[in-house]
Amino acid sequence: MIYLDNAATSYPKPESVWRAADRAARLWGGNPGRSGHRLANRAAQIVYDCREAVAGLFEASPEAVVFTSNATGALNLAIASLAKPGDEVLISNIEHNAVLRPVHRLTNGRYRTFDALGDSNTVEQRFLAALTPQTALVVCAHVSNLCGLTLPIERIGRICYERGIRLIVDASQSAGHLPVSIAATYADAICAPGHKGLYGLMGSGFAVFADRYVENARVLRPFVCGGNGVNSRERTMPDFLPERLEAGTLPMPALAALSEGIREVRRIGLTTIAAKEEACGRYLCDAFASMPGVSLYGVRYGGGTVLFSLDGMASEEVAEALDRSGICVRAGLHCCPLGHETLGTPSDGAVRVSVSYFTHRRDLDALIDAVAKILRER
Amino acid sequence: MIYLDNAATSYPKPESVWRAADRAARLWGGNPGRSGHRLANRAAQIVYDCREAVAGLFEASPEAVVFTSNATGALNLAIASLAKPGDEVLISNIEHNAVLRPVHRLTNGRYRTFDALGDSNTVEQRFLAALTPQTALVVCAHVSNLCGLTLPIERIGRICYERGIRLIVDASQSAGHLPVSIAATYADAICAPGHKGLYGLMGSGFAVFADRYVENARVLRPFVCGGNGVNSRERTMPDFLPERLEAGTLPMPALAALSEGIREVRRIGLTTIAAKEEACGRYLCDAFASMPGVSLYGVRYGGGTVLFSLDGMASEEVAEALDRSGICVRAGLHCCPLGHETLGTPSDGAVRVSVSYFTHRRDLDALIDAVAKILRER
Repeated sequence: MIYLDNAATSYPKPESVWRAADRAARLWGGNPGRSGHRLANRAAQIVYDCREAVAGLFEASPEAVVFTSNATGALNLAIASLAKPGDEVLISNIEHNAVLRPVHRLTNGRYRTFDALGDSNTVEQRFLAALTPQTALVVCAHVSNLCGLTLPIERIGRICYERGIRLIVDASQSAGHLPVSIAATYADAICAPGHKGLYGLMGSGFAVFADRYVENARVLRPFVCGGNGVNSRERTMPDFLPERLEAGTLPMPALAALSEGIREVRRIGLTTIAAKEEACGRYLCDAFASMPGVSLYGVRYGGGTVLFSLDGMASEEVAEALDRSGICVRAGLHCCPLGHETLGTPSDGAVRVSVSYFTHRRDLDALIDAVAKILRER
Repeated sequence: MIYLDNAATSYPKPESVWRAADRAARLWGGNPGRSGHRLANRAAQIVYDCREAVAGLFEASPEAVVFTSNATGALNLAIASLAKPGDEVLISNIEHNAVLRPVHRLTNGRYRTFDALGDSNTVEQRFLAALTPQTALVVCAHVSNLCGLTLPIERIGRICYERGIRLIVDASQSAGHLPVSIAATYADAICAPGHKGLYGLMGSGFAVFADRYVENARVLRPFVCGGNGVNSRERTMPDFLPERLEAGTLPMPALAALSEGIREVRRIGLTTIAAKEEACGRYLCDAFASMPGVSLYGVRYGGGTVLFSLDGMASEEVAEALDRSGICVRAGLHCCPLGHETLGTPSDGAVRVSVSYFTHRRDLDALIDAVAKILRER
């Protein structure tokens, strides 16, 4: 089996990740932060280690790392914390439904969009032109979940910061692939899943908040309310991070896995990962570009995600044929109808190939051969 | 080590639970419901199996099972789905902060409470007296997280149903310990964690909705918005369950574990579990009642959770001394200040012992000996 659906979730994980989750569940299965006994304390240490690992990667404070079940939960939490109904919200035109739907709800459908398709200078100009004096919040992806498109988030972040506009970055497709720093982007929050580029297991995600919220957490509106073992007598959530925004039992085994995943990312190095994945993407795009009957969409170079269709074939049909050859890819709209519209794919979407650092050249060759075979036999 | 903190999270888990999570993560790590390839399909099957297992236990429809990261998330989701700001909400006076805090927020602190301390007839009368013509929602625990107190939720449910009042049951301490049926309680939703009585891993929880919402899901307001692989073009969440209320990647390995945990509960049988746990609670209470210097709080019989304090000692001090003897219990307020107030514990709370079906008589004897030793040496 050849797995090329890493933008949905990375697979396989490093052995250390699987082992860490199993070990934490078996040996240290106390409820972190709830009790004072050895098992709960060790579980709390596992959670704190993960907080530090995430903080280290994003150049944030450990207290500013808020754990959730997935990136969607983190984005909902960050949006609810940083904006209120009536606020003017600007998003890019390649946003995933994890951004689009909560923003649609918050604004009753009256959000604005800017065009993210183009080079950094062009996108920056379009972004500036889309801002209004009323813009209160910007939510945008760092990297598209459909193709190699990467937004100039450091420039966007500086503009937002200078104008007092809040910024949430969806790093779902960049965390573990490219450097992402809460300090360098000036973002208010960065959200990501644990189970994609960071090699954690499904069941973990997080929002990392800017340092300035550590001293001023009370301006953040809690999304989930409940117990977390501190200030129990209060009827409202604590006014410090991360407890203001975290309630209920944390997914401790998945966080043990995430710590190991981040360790693996750092061991390999983001530069090495980015270079390998981009080389894979480039190799695939070059091969596809030379094959009549293959259409490529979006930005062709930059990252390891490639979007294509075969003339006259439905994307699901192509994915099914590839699955019969033992190749896992994802067809359709990828929960990103806005991005598909922007990239001009067919009405049924397209086929997405997403590599990881662990993808081999021979996997790509097998895919290219399989696509060629489909084209011959269609 | 003797673990008597099962009300925080059950430990150890059955071997099959640990193995299922590890196996699912290692062998079937696709993103469920996102792609059509073999790995994603198998992951989707694992999730669906868990939906069926939960549905079977609660006598619900599989579509009406909405997965979350923990019970707190499920309660927040159910409350947001079923009530709106301005609604009059009634809760019991033993509610956990996972109920109290979201209800406090929703109502701006203007919720009503009824006294849950007493036999079923008394509680039913007090409940009836606390209702007003404006009561729109009742949220209450099935079993206290502090002691054996069990609310007559079937009677409460019938009253609510007849009056058109919505009911959410917090089954955090009853799921896996006692039969809980969405049909028999007439509840609108029942919420529970996967990692307590159901022997799953931390990182899973769920809200089970009444069958009537399967045909009428659009009346439920989504809490988390985002992608879930269906109706991607829509800017709003689908109007059917469970997709209306679920967004983002599900914690697949934890759900594989939960299926096995529920299988284990059914294999042993709820009647056997309840009898064993109640016998443990009774044994402990009888022993403590005969020891001068031990104060017991709340309902002494019914379930395996016992709340006590030692005269003149802080609860944390007692728990620390027990931890030094290798016994894990939880001291303090247990995220349930309202319940502690109702039960009249000291200002620093009390010590909670919570057994599971896997607790041995010798574990209880060790605890009793350790408490006697603390009393002698204090």
